[in-house]
Amino acid sequence: MNTIITQQERDNFYKVLYGRRDVRSEFLSDPIADDALERILQAAHHAPSVGFSQPWNFILLRDEKVKRAVHDLHQQANAEAAEMFSEPQQQDYQQLKLAGIVDAPLNVCITCDRERAGAVVLGKTHQPEMDLYSTVCAVQNLQLAARAENIGVGWVSIMDKSRLKALLKIPERIEVIAYLCLGHVSHFHNKPELELKGWQKRKNLNDLLCLDKWSF
Amino acid sequence: MNTIITQQERDNFYKVLYGRRDVRSEFLSDPIADDALERILQAAHHAPSVGFSQPWNFILLRDEKVKRAVHDLHQQANAEAAEMFSEPQQQDYQQLKLAGIVDAPLNVCITCDRERAGAVVLGKTHQPEMDLYSTVCAVQNLQLAARAENIGVGWVSIMDKSRLKALLKIPERIEVIAYLCLGHVSHFHNKPELELKGWQKRKNLNDLLCLDKWSF
Repeated sequence: MNTIITQQERDNFYKVLYGRRDVRSEFLSDPIADDALERILQAAHHAPSVGFSQPWNFILLRDEKVKRAVHDLHQQANAEAAEMFSEPQQQDYQQLKLAGIVDAPLNVCITCDRERAGAVVLGKTHQPEMDLYSTVCAVQNLQLAARAENIGVGWVSIMDKSRLKALLKIPERIEVIAYLCLGHVSHFHNKPELELKGWQKRKNLNDLLCLDKWSF
Repeated sequence: MNTIITQQERDNFYKVLYGRRDVRSEFLSDPIADDALERILQAAHHAPSVGFSQPWNFILLRDEKVKRAVHDLHQQANAEAAEMFSEPQQQDYQQLKLAGIVDAPLNVCITCDRERAGAVVLGKTHQPEMDLYSTVCAVQNLQLAARAENIGVGWVSIMDKSRLKALLKIPERIEVIAYLCLGHVSHFHNKPELELKGWQKRKNLNDLLCLDKWSF
């Protein structure tokens, strides 16, 4: 494999990156082909990891009963979350659909094994959170690879993780990093849904940059 | 922009993803072109973020004196880290070059503002760590976009973050997520360096998968 990336290849890479959306409402029930799923998971597995520890596991969730139980956890947390917003945000919040757990044919829970590579791990000695961050890199690889396969992903974070761990029989030392919904979609929005709906604006990159020391 | 990704585009995306390496020793001193750097940072800025909060900042580090001071922090932490390994790993560890802070023409410190979007953030109510994880998604977008630009990146985690924050005048509420070295490279390895050097093996993806509940 030629290791130089050409301009065409780079442009195609950026098309995937900029076409990625967090999907909530557009899932179709069509199943994901096995070969596409294999490529998506391999992409996640080829994320960088601290000390090459590969601390992740992937729980694939297809059982309707399990998905419904996770959906209930989300609904409960979402009702609690709505209470935390003041008006007029609270009303806006309640009108957003924030998860496609049951609609999406596949859910994937990505976890981090805090003890995967033993007690002393290269690169974790001074930043013990690096295994968590490695696993997030796997999540982001998965999200981008799914977009390359024309599959939508929604990351659902409105959920009590300790209840999710109990439901999925996840042991204590294992950290849940992400709960994702995957499926084909009717369409991808051309901008983030929260931008389209006026919840937040895109910031100007130049306002987020500084040189040689913090100067904001 | 056509939102369907073709097979050719997908293959090119995967070429970038699988060609990415964590770079330590292969940096060249040639500067990074402004337009390439702009594209790399925009890619990071277009990562998904919880509640579209975009909690990141990017400190670009070019000053030789600052880079040398950061290199000193790394050297100090690396000596401490080496002491934590037992033989024969300790000797192997000491022979690894683990950072290219001074060699790389550009360093980038990526931070997360824990208060970026106010006290109540959509998606953070039950998982307050989601802003940290959003910022890691930006780091991974940056690493992949750099590879698409034929630029190498090395993530240096062997460093005391509180000392780095003091050096770069980073305020208390701001979390350092990643310290990265960027530059052109003599070549990209065809596998992770820690795999090539026998530090860790690539795990089999199938051993990391399970269905519907944790079952390892």
